[in-house]
Amino acid sequence: MDPIERARRDVVIANRILAQQRVLDAYGHVSVRHPLDANKYLLARSCSPGIVGVEDIVEFRLDGTPARPEKRPLYLERFIHGAVYERRPDVKAVLHSHADDLLPFSISRTTRLRPVIHSCGDMGQDIPVWDIAHKFGDATSLLVLNMEHGRDLAEALAGNRIALMAAHGFVATGRSIYDLVRLSVYIPRNARVQLQAMQMGEHRVISPGETQARVALDPDSPALMRGWEFWAREAGCEALLEEAGAE
Amino acid sequence: MDPIERARRDVVIANRILAQQRVLDAYGHVSVRHPLDANKYLLARSCSPGIVGVEDIVEFRLDGTPARPEKRPLYLERFIHGAVYERRPDVKAVLHSHADDLLPFSISRTTRLRPVIHSCGDMGQDIPVWDIAHKFGDATSLLVLNMEHGRDLAEALAGNRIALMAAHGFVATGRSIYDLVRLSVYIPRNARVQLQAMQMGEHRVISPGETQARVALDPDSPALMRGWEFWAREAGCEALLEEAGAE
Amino acid sequence: MDPIERARRDVVIANRILAQQRVLDAYGHVSVRHPLDANKYLLARSCSPGIVGVEDIVEFRLDGTPARPEKRPLYLERFIHGAVYERRPDVKAVLHSHADDLLPFSISRTTRLRPVIHSCGDMGQDIPVWDIAHKFGDATSLLVLNMEHGRDLAEALAGNRIALMAAHGFVATGRSIYDLVRLSVYIPRNARVQLQAMQMGEHRVISPGETQARVALDPDSPALMRGWEFWAREAGCEALLEEAGAE
Amino acid sequence: MDPIERARRDVVIANRILAQQRVLDAYGHVSVRHPLDANKYLLARSCSPGIVGVEDIVEFRLDGTPARPEKRPLYLERFIHGAVYERRPDVKAVLHSHADDLLPFSISRTTRLRPVIHSCGDMGQDIPVWDIAHKFGDATSLLVLNMEHGRDLAEALAGNRIALMAAHGFVATGRSIYDLVRLSVYIPRNARVQLQAMQMGEHRVISPGETQARVALDPDSPALMRGWEFWAREAGCEALLEEAGAE
Repeated sequence: MDPIERARRDVVIANRILAQQRVLDAYGHVSVRHPLDANKYLLARSCSPGIVGVEDIVEFRLDGTPARPEKRPLYLERFIHGAVYERRPDVKAVLHSHADDLLPFSISRTTRLRPVIHSCGDMGQDIPVWDIAHKFGDATSLLVLNMEHGRDLAEALAGNRIALMAAHGFVATGRSIYDLVRLSVYIPRNARVQLQAMQMGEHRVISPGETQARVALDPDSPALMRGWEFWAREAGCEALLEEAGAE
Repeated sequence: MDPIERARRDVVIANRILAQQRVLDAYGHVSVRHPLDANKYLLARSCSPGIVGVEDIVEFRLDGTPARPEKRPLYLERFIHGAVYERRPDVKAVLHSHADDLLPFSISRTTRLRPVIHSCGDMGQDIPVWDIAHKFGDATSLLVLNMEHGRDLAEALAGNRIALMAAHGFVATGRSIYDLVRLSVYIPRNARVQLQAMQMGEHRVISPGETQARVALDPDSPALMRGWEFWAREAGCEALLEEAGAE
Repeated sequence: MDPIERARRDVVIANRILAQQRVLDAYGHVSVRHPLDANKYLLARSCSPGIVGVEDIVEFRLDGTPARPEKRPLYLERFIHGAVYERRPDVKAVLHSHADDLLPFSISRTTRLRPVIHSCGDMGQDIPVWDIAHKFGDATSLLVLNMEHGRDLAEALAGNRIALMAAHGFVATGRSIYDLVRLSVYIPRNARVQLQAMQMGEHRVISPGETQARVALDPDSPALMRGWEFWAREAGCEALLEEAGAE
Repeated sequence: MDPIERARRDVVIANRILAQQRVLDAYGHVSVRHPLDANKYLLARSCSPGIVGVEDIVEFRLDGTPARPEKRPLYLERFIHGAVYERRPDVKAVLHSHADDLLPFSISRTTRLRPVIHSCGDMGQDIPVWDIAHKFGDATSLLVLNMEHGRDLAEALAGNRIALMAAHGFVATGRSIYDLVRLSVYIPRNARVQLQAMQMGEHRVISPGETQARVALDPDSPALMRGWEFWAREAGCEALLEEAGAE
């Protein structure tokens, strides 16, 4: 299959999986870097992730302008994606989510989100919290509405895999869209487990060596693709999956 | 479409969305102010929100009497709606819900519900708790059974967007029914996030400036209508949505 | 409809509602006193509540023996029902459930379950905890396997509406099966709300006068039947509902 | 039915039940010891439990090699199963799960999982926590990738019914696959109940005598098979259930 067509189908599958797994709801979005042009990315028009289709996928330049004329409304916060792709050439896929389980950690003054379960070992040891108010003041809508906002977020993300957005959600990145989706399904669970373990007292965290070992796992292995394939079926994307392949 | 017919269909969609999103269960109700006569409102007959249809919508005067003869049983607590519309000309839609996540805050002697997530930034900074026992004593059924009860609740609500009802639930208001539904879907999540953040210690709250910026967002923008449209589809109201339009 | 046939259909609907609302799972059971013979009750054969049908309903004497020869396996804990009906002539329906949310209160050494939400106002002010170990020692299977066990539980229940069973679940009673089902759907929610409110500090409880006012509500009113009718539809029992009537 | 064919169908049903009950998700696996050859076990190829079919079941030797040539990818962690069967001749079925509710207990430095609800009375009094880091250092992927890892886990399990795996999940065992599935459905609930009870203070635990009495219950009784049969239907396995029988 044509790599662009495949990327479009994969970003549709990612939308549907993340909606079905409740990482996204009516809001939030997921993109993939253009497979042939690193200065573009593929992201849906303004559309809830659970109903995104191939025809909804739009090609954007890194500055958030559509590559071709586009009359349909666009996500106001698409600048998150371009700013991360701009700063991080290694990143091939980006998610912005409001998943409830992360939000307490995004507003806590006392506690940092830490990797505590093996499936989030590759989330990284350091998970920064970006607060739009630090640079843009405490009278914003909290939305990432332009490249200046996006670049400030990308600067806070720095070389890490995910960053929390205070009172808003999080941004996560992947070396591929499969890698991103697999991790993202488990991030909310990691947050729940950490909160519950804290309620009982001191707890184990994933060590730096364990993080390295998890990152070193082959993201294209059958084991890591098992989730993508299963969740795609659960989300009703079996046909798209077969067409797009995931080999 | 005729504005009354459209309002009737919109209140049906609102019922179905709020049931499907678990903001309402077998009980609770949502109304819209009559689009042509500010002294009336549209609310279902006594019927669980998940099965309300267009034929179940009844026109009420603000005092809770049906505008036309009506033999079907009516919600005992419909006075909540009329009393709020009476006191608050700016309010175009009213919800009464028993959503579990709000109830701990409605009975807490120590903690106030605060806006902590961006999607509830427009919930307001001050969220009063109304206790029927304050004025009517501690031997009531806790139900709002007449205009006197309703007006006492509306007085406690004052100029705010929502008010908790002790040991009972909450009332929420909207500048439109779309505005009300969008906020209402997120109110329970805000409560969960606040409770969890408190379990970890001190936390960030939405600032007054952020509240102002959120209120200033255009409630008819594609971004804010995205939830209504998606949730309506999830709730099986696609046909009603197309007929009613939501432009 | 013949009152016995109606009672059989109602106990089927109750099983299906309570399974669909997750008050019962593969285990637990609900019965109704025989409408014409106060010394008998109607309860399913050993069958998971979610799949109970009219043909599964068996007539039992209060001592737990089937009124007619019965070869199918029976619930081991059916003695709960007979013992409660024997001691409490006012009780017309009995539920035994293992709902998770009640279990922490059934084992807590520090905290009593209290009515905190209006829908459980009629649960009563005093909710005893029965521990089989008190009379029968700490080497039982915790199951209520005979009338001696059942009568000890009924003695602990005394004149109350519900009793917790330590490390096991709870028993609830109703003046009718509709009354029982409505309350039972909300008991787990009351437990969740109380636990969450306690995590924030002191909280309001339903007052004795409020309990009296809630008990005084007409259990056959449209308002209280609204839940039964809605939940029956949700549980796929629309046909049974129409046949059985619920007027 | 041929005992091998029956075992294959039962392991499929177990996969489907545990997926539907959310004890397993896209990951985790369940096996049964070969009914005729104690040195083999039946486990799916690398496949998400919710979609395992009879054709996916592979026969393995205890060292994790397939008994017949097999080209399809295999679970990386299948060594868990063989190592437990090797050390524990009494064990006829093994589950490896990542269920969220157990994970806080697997990383807690302060709190041990205890049996607190009657349905987990037979979980045992002592629930060890195995941390791969103790023997293999803190730079592993946390996965059980060979027999050396598996044997270390089996040694920690010792004569117990279940063992937690730090930051990873748990392993559970059964005297039969029905016995394993019934217990496994309740293990996450026991964890939730214990955590909530702890939040209120001191709580009752299942006594050693109660554990003995629960273990002594006949695992083939209609009462204990009721769950298997109901959950199999819920999981869409009615046809397989009838073919495989469960008498």
